[in-house]
Amino acid sequence: MERVALIGASMTQFGQRDAWVRELLSEAGLACLDDSGVEPAAIDHLYVSNMASGEFEGQTGIPNALAHDLAAMPAYTARIDQTSSSGGAGVYAAWQSVASGASDMTMLVGGEKMTHRSTAEATDVIASLTHPVEYKHGVTLPSFAGLTARLYLDTYDAPRESLAKVAVKNHANGVDNPHAQFQKEVDLDTVLESPIVADPLRLYDFCPITDGSAALMFCPESIAREYTDDYVTIEGIGGATDTHVVHERADPTTMGGVVDSSQIAYEMADMDPDDMDIAELHDMFTILEFLQSEDLGFFEKGTGWKAVEEGRTDRDGELPINTSGGLKSKGHPLGASGVAQVYEIYAQLTRTAGNRQVDADVGLACNVGGFGNCVTTTIMEAN
Amino acid sequence: MERVALIGASMTQFGQRDAWVRELLSEAGLACLDDSGVEPAAIDHLYVSNMASGEFEGQTGIPNALAHDLAAMPAYTARIDQTSSSGGAGVYAAWQSVASGASDMTMLVGGEKMTHRSTAEATDVIASLTHPVEYKHGVTLPSFAGLTARLYLDTYDAPRESLAKVAVKNHANGVDNPHAQFQKEVDLDTVLESPIVADPLRLYDFCPITDGSAALMFCPESIAREYTDDYVTIEGIGGATDTHVVHERADPTTMGGVVDSSQIAYEMADMDPDDMDIAELHDMFTILEFLQSEDLGFFEKGTGWKAVEEGRTDRDGELPINTSGGLKSKGHPLGASGVAQVYEIYAQLTRTAGNRQVDADVGLACNVGGFGNCVTTTIMEAN
Repeated sequence: MERVALIGASMTQFGQRDAWVRELLSEAGLACLDDSGVEPAAIDHLYVSNMASGEFEGQTGIPNALAHDLAAMPAYTARIDQTSSSGGAGVYAAWQSVASGASDMTMLVGGEKMTHRSTAEATDVIASLTHPVEYKHGVTLPSFAGLTARLYLDTYDAPRESLAKVAVKNHANGVDNPHAQFQKEVDLDTVLESPIVADPLRLYDFCPITDGSAALMFCPESIAREYTDDYVTIEGIGGATDTHVVHERADPTTMGGVVDSSQIAYEMADMDPDDMDIAELHDMFTILEFLQSEDLGFFEKGTGWKAVEEGRTDRDGELPINTSGGLKSKGHPLGASGVAQVYEIYAQLTRTAGNRQVDADVGLACNVGGFGNCVTTTIMEAN
Repeated sequence: MERVALIGASMTQFGQRDAWVRELLSEAGLACLDDSGVEPAAIDHLYVSNMASGEFEGQTGIPNALAHDLAAMPAYTARIDQTSSSGGAGVYAAWQSVASGASDMTMLVGGEKMTHRSTAEATDVIASLTHPVEYKHGVTLPSFAGLTARLYLDTYDAPRESLAKVAVKNHANGVDNPHAQFQKEVDLDTVLESPIVADPLRLYDFCPITDGSAALMFCPESIAREYTDDYVTIEGIGGATDTHVVHERADPTTMGGVVDSSQIAYEMADMDPDDMDIAELHDMFTILEFLQSEDLGFFEKGTGWKAVEEGRTDRDGELPINTSGGLKSKGHPLGASGVAQVYEIYAQLTRTAGNRQVDADVGLACNVGGFGNCVTTTIMEAN
């Protein structure tokens, strides 16, 4: 099987956008064509990562609309949904389309338009991914985050402040990301004194509701060289599920889908966690960054909080995490987030990350759906 | 690349079902495990074809729920949506997962639960796939069917009765399909005297609103032999789009997505239309069976109606079309339909189609999304 390469990437401004999802997808898609130098007629497959355009906007069939808007017809299209990890699932679908030989040029565009709905409405749409019994009891994803944060702090004797430091770090990174929804620093007191949402988590422990889109161009490595010498290869990729019902998990502070999907990706890449230079993790809630940094094997179980306290995941640390600002500061337009994670790794590995550039040749993106219900992990390397 | 095989298939009773989509998916999934002899723990990837569980039921994340219900965790899961051709897109995704080497055992389950909503509500959800301008003008899919039928009859001098004969033929086939929603014959007069829906099309020119699910098991051919000697191989598969805005098409009686997707599939299979022994076409409306039978190359443009008139597509004809009863008589649970088409070809090629069995070694399934907006075509051969 031939190696799959990324030869272009783009993302729109994330935040509150006066545009429908179709327009956001087109904006990112056109920018990705421009970045990669690929003509739209060369696209064989066009995937759209999106969770809920039907529920949010009453508009479905958006991949077909995008093929039309990008002049990519008759490219094959489909929508890939894996709830909040639709972007990562789209990366996997795009990879498979090239690795299987079905497509020699695949564009993936992820996007979601959410801010026209209230936070309560958006949270309700997202909560439709939970088990009906959970939903009936009002246990939305923020509730799970609060319960898990409490369990983690108690079990591993971690201070409340350590969670807040994830927010402080990721906001500091977001300052240097011109596409981020929030490009402003926050200090520890601001986080710790913000309104309680799901005790012990407060407003600044949560990612915002966001509109936005991101796009990637995939092709076989042999074709990549026709477009650029500065491409990135996908060395490993895997996906896995955990229980649909969260309370059935033996240990809610371990995300089984992160463990399992990363093992597949590490094995395929023939790499270890130590080989990673940077990572983009799914910090929808601050607590999730601790869990993933442990379940991916970066730090021992129960010590992820110490790594943050010690600055080891800062931009000048040994393993910078969420140089993009993460979902926390960059924003979390559901279907776009997993694509934007890979965009960030691509930008870092191709040395085009501007003021937030770090020294990295290998990077990992971990995209989490639900409360760890389904996960994809992607490992990339600079050419 | 190794050839991909189908080693098991199942479908639930189609019709008005007192079960949610999660239950329908589980029913088909468990039956497919049983049919294939595969243990759930052996499943690497699990795809769900579904258009709108969020809009119809307020339930998303159904692939994750299914992995749980089938005890297939931690199998990777994702939902594949291509509106009414979600099933065919799922077949393509499942094929890619095996052909790429990402999965050695992939289950695909397609399903939709619709009958708890009124026909008007269901039609409105489906119409959300059209262009916003079309939607605003009230042009739903049945409207396009009426306009296109009028154009076809006028252009090719075809009698109104020829359309009705598609319904008569497919209902006759449905009598012998125990899973079909309608297992009763209709005569020409009943069709021609049924209420007008979109002139010249009448009630019996349309498929019903349906609940149901269907499932397939895919693996590399080398592994297939461990389970059965009686498998089916996927010889060719392709997908393509046509314009999102229907009125932009040069000739609305030609479905470009059918032409383009079948050319990819024929080329991959190194076969011609003449090599097909049977076909399942997307007869959401009777007129669509004419268009597809021509655009797939079975009959000259403008002569599909004659083929039906002459009985050439009957079960004892030279190319039986829709031996299952088609969407017309079997029913059309959106995400399940493309999967159920492949189920029928699998059943015919493995000589397990019961009273509707025909003599066939090669078969084709064509699944159409929207009004030809996106299409997948799959060619299968008996081992």
